[in-house]
Amino acid sequence: MKDIHAMAPPRGSLRLRRVGVAGLKKPLVVARPEHLTTLTATFSVAVDLPSDRKGSDLSRNAQVLAEVVDQTSTHPVSGLEAACSVIAEVLLDRHPSARESAVHATAEYFLARGISEERRSLENYLLIADARAYRAEDGAVSVIRTIGVEAVGMTACPCAMEGCREQLTREFPLLADPSLAELPIVTHNQRNRTRLSIELPAGIEVEADEMISVVESAQSSPTYAILKRGDEAQLVLNAHRHPRFVEDVVRELLSHTGRQFPQLPDSAVVTAETRSEESIHKYDVEASHSATIGELRAGSSRP
Amino acid sequence: MKDIHAMAPPRGSLRLRRVGVAGLKKPLVVARPEHLTTLTATFSVAVDLPSDRKGSDLSRNAQVLAEVVDQTSTHPVSGLEAACSVIAEVLLDRHPSARESAVHATAEYFLARGISEERRSLENYLLIADARAYRAEDGAVSVIRTIGVEAVGMTACPCAMEGCREQLTREFPLLADPSLAELPIVTHNQRNRTRLSIELPAGIEVEADEMISVVESAQSSPTYAILKRGDEAQLVLNAHRHPRFVEDVVRELLSHTGRQFPQLPDSAVVTAETRSEESIHKYDVEASHSATIGELRAGSSRP
Amino acid sequence: MKDIHAMAPPRGSLRLRRVGVAGLKKPLVVARPEHLTTLTATFSVAVDLPSDRKGSDLSRNAQVLAEVVDQTSTHPVSGLEAACSVIAEVLLDRHPSARESAVHATAEYFLARGISEERRSLENYLLIADARAYRAEDGAVSVIRTIGVEAVGMTACPCAMEGCREQLTREFPLLADPSLAELPIVTHNQRNRTRLSIELPAGIEVEADEMISVVESAQSSPTYAILKRGDEAQLVLNAHRHPRFVEDVVRELLSHTGRQFPQLPDSAVVTAETRSEESIHKYDVEASHSATIGELRAGSSRP
Amino acid sequence: MKDIHAMAPPRGSLRLRRVGVAGLKKPLVVARPEHLTTLTATFSVAVDLPSDRKGSDLSRNAQVLAEVVDQTSTHPVSGLEAACSVIAEVLLDRHPSARESAVHATAEYFLARGISEERRSLENYLLIADARAYRAEDGAVSVIRTIGVEAVGMTACPCAMEGCREQLTREFPLLADPSLAELPIVTHNQRNRTRLSIELPAGIEVEADEMISVVESAQSSPTYAILKRGDEAQLVLNAHRHPRFVEDVVRELLSHTGRQFPQLPDSAVVTAETRSEESIHKYDVEASHSATIGELRAGSSRP
Repeated sequence: MKDIHAMAPPRGSLRLRRVGVAGLKKPLVVARPEHLTTLTATFSVAVDLPSDRKGSDLSRNAQVLAEVVDQTSTHPVSGLEAACSVIAEVLLDRHPSARESAVHATAEYFLARGISEERRSLENYLLIADARAYRAEDGAVSVIRTIGVEAVGMTACPCAMEGCREQLTREFPLLADPSLAELPIVTHNQRNRTRLSIELPAGIEVEADEMISVVESAQSSPTYAILKRGDEAQLVLNAHRHPRFVEDVVRELLSHTGRQFPQLPDSAVVTAETRSEESIHKYDVEASHSATIGELRAGSSRP
Repeated sequence: MKDIHAMAPPRGSLRLRRVGVAGLKKPLVVARPEHLTTLTATFSVAVDLPSDRKGSDLSRNAQVLAEVVDQTSTHPVSGLEAACSVIAEVLLDRHPSARESAVHATAEYFLARGISEERRSLENYLLIADARAYRAEDGAVSVIRTIGVEAVGMTACPCAMEGCREQLTREFPLLADPSLAELPIVTHNQRNRTRLSIELPAGIEVEADEMISVVESAQSSPTYAILKRGDEAQLVLNAHRHPRFVEDVVRELLSHTGRQFPQLPDSAVVTAETRSEESIHKYDVEASHSATIGELRAGSSRP
Repeated sequence: MKDIHAMAPPRGSLRLRRVGVAGLKKPLVVARPEHLTTLTATFSVAVDLPSDRKGSDLSRNAQVLAEVVDQTSTHPVSGLEAACSVIAEVLLDRHPSARESAVHATAEYFLARGISEERRSLENYLLIADARAYRAEDGAVSVIRTIGVEAVGMTACPCAMEGCREQLTREFPLLADPSLAELPIVTHNQRNRTRLSIELPAGIEVEADEMISVVESAQSSPTYAILKRGDEAQLVLNAHRHPRFVEDVVRELLSHTGRQFPQLPDSAVVTAETRSEESIHKYDVEASHSATIGELRAGSSRP
Repeated sequence: MKDIHAMAPPRGSLRLRRVGVAGLKKPLVVARPEHLTTLTATFSVAVDLPSDRKGSDLSRNAQVLAEVVDQTSTHPVSGLEAACSVIAEVLLDRHPSARESAVHATAEYFLARGISEERRSLENYLLIADARAYRAEDGAVSVIRTIGVEAVGMTACPCAMEGCREQLTREFPLLADPSLAELPIVTHNQRNRTRLSIELPAGIEVEADEMISVVESAQSSPTYAILKRGDEAQLVLNAHRHPRFVEDVVRELLSHTGRQFPQLPDSAVVTAETRSEESIHKYDVEASHSATIGELRAGSSRP
């Protein structure tokens, strides 16, 4: 059969940076420290296309995903980013004319968490992973992996809290009593969605579960599915005792990340992104920043 | 050319209840009391298909939408539900073998609103409209219209507020002072999305703007784009002085609707749906109910 | 602590039809004939609320989901609809003042399928399940379950094919040669999304895998992740040899369903819904219909 | 009132790259050559935050949007990208401590198009615009604008067409007759979504309508809402006479763009992104590339 993909494209054609498949869903079996878990993962994979080829052999992409991911039912991988890394390498192997490959995957993920031991149930988080493989002139392949997590928690606004304190103190003069100085004051609070991504150097690993804990500690409070009445109050009070702007969430998150992962070299790049679905507005507020672990470590020791 | 649609389907074929087009976008020009406004509307329109026809002439649906909607640039309609009503009738006219037609449309809508006169800006709402036309045996056509609105506002939880009051009073005994009895207490608050739909009898009209006001009065507080610092506190305090479950929102909304629209007959059906994007959970809470205006009027006079 | 939910609402309050939680995600372990599989399921659960209670104890809903679903990691269920049925019953048990409960769940689902044995890989489908439990005056509880599946496949349009045949025959008179009477002719084809739902009487089961096969046989062709070049041609030719309108897909699907499941009583209600993401338009076309198995059986034997 | 935003954050805090509001919806009145049109636009706007400030004054962002966008009802702008550019500059003005601002907006857009003059109706497209403003050390502000469009059209696959030709020729030997050499052969075709973005140097303008035409000419065929039977065949045949991979779409699009806009300097950056919602797969295929106009001009003259 005529190989249309391998034909020469029109004169003067460009090399294309990315050609691939997107939104391909697969079950991925991951071995966690204590047990196996099956993720429903969504993959996008692509390679570049040289200027002298008309098309990329996209069926190879689906084939690679089937080989690598389907076989985890018998040979589990250690994590979503590990799967992406293997896929990125095998892609370069199957596309001999490509110089780089890119893999992106997301999956819902569950951890047993609760406001107390007896309230624990499976809470949902999002895993995000990327891997990019590059083939050097000498054929050597290098891979850059990124591991990411997203957790939904709560933020309570420190600014509206201060405004309410002032208005309420005018209306209720007793509020100025020193014994009430630490009384949590009403403010707007809301669902907050925060993402942490870390670019992993070869041979260095970071646990997604630990990243999720770092994200939750940067929000005003984590949230839970099961909250009996006393628990609701406890969670609300916790959030109001840690009022945070989206700006605070990003800075807290980056600062914790700089201290929490000693295995990361100074050159590793970290990205924090947060979005609060404001209860007082119809729109969201966002903050984001990227920095190297070295900058974060310097920052936390800076006077 | 052979008319495939008009061919007989296989023996024993069923009449089909709905065949149509979905997700067709159009600009619709609406004449409001004070000005013209252009909505970006999304339409789905369908008719039934008799058992002796293989296919429905779907190009007629797109043609009807083009005729009715495109011409509003020169001949504006009075509202989204008025446009749907005309479309439903014209559809029956163009599909002589159909007995019923169904039109559904949604559009973002804007009103100048603010926490005070000098903070007014254009806030976004959603309009939803439905129309169903029926052809009787004698050829007479009747249309049932439904007008709907959705507003995003805020709810503050009365239960967590009570729980926090109890825990805080143990920690801050001065809180029990009678002068603080009305002090707003912290709770979780969140974005709330509430929808009101009213089935309109022939000849009866209801203003979408008035429906939006009724929805906003049923939430703990409306929300606004522009809030300077004092405004934020005012909105937060307002919401905490009207703590409401989703159950409260639905009951408030239905009760207000029963009183607010004297032009509606007792037989008109009203539906209220609300969804709070809980700040303390990763999931939403919902409530909904349908009732006739007659039931709502009886309820509000019930002891 | 004061029980706000149990308090009396304002005078003349309505009973509410639905109060619940929505969008709660959980991993659900299902025992399939040959193996265990973990679904990432999304649940919405609700009960009614009597007129004399202010609020519904929503934390019980999350608690029930945690109990029933989390324990499937050690005690797998037979299917998504079986899980929903248990949840609906337990909800009524935990909400003594409720008269009905409603559970809705969806989950991505995977089956090993391929255009040939050596091309098999895990293809993704959607499972949809509903269960409603009712408590009679005498306390007896009955449950109505619905099992649904959605499959993405392909439709090829019979009408444009006929139009192209006529235009092409004018341009290429040789096309009229009788030896080419069966030649597949170009038309528009597209991604089609079709859903089949069956209301299951007590004690009657239907396999989701079998329902998926019925859906795929009603489309012009199923689709697959892995298609080498010859396979692509085979799939395209198969689709063009079974050109189908959305109307045809619904009728085929209902007709097959009437014959395929002898265990269903005549009273069981079946719903077919299909949506083609038309390649020649920016909008979709849809068809849907509901019928009893009895009607479908009569139809298929009707002359 | 205490200004929480202006307070010093904890020691060693980072400057943050982006803090802003997202998903704010507004009607925007645009003056087109022949008429006024109202877009329903969605805006995200952000600025950076210096390391010595705790928070960004986000209410100013909503205020700027209200001022600039709401006033277009009386003072229309020339386009979405013009509005974004003004917003980016005013943002820097209102955030004196910021060094850069970023504005992103999207809006549905309509043009009267049709397969023939008498079939014209309003077809929907997407406008995308970005503007970034930078404040230099000396206070001078520069703005980089990007204008983008997205059009939904159709692609027909050249590879499956070749595979089908080979299989069909074996089955129908008459197909090898030279008079049928140009006969369009069946293949899979599908909805394709293609986006073109151009970074505009100061003082240079490009018409969105012209960009949309360039995108549509890069697809196998544009698509239309109204297609009577003969029209459907004409569109299908047109697409099958221009079979294109996503790779072809990107290369065609970049190549046309290099020739179509003489007003652009060689340094202007162009990005093409395309996604085909494959009818033979459950997933999409994608291609994308960025290049300077200079590279594209050199390419089209390259032997």
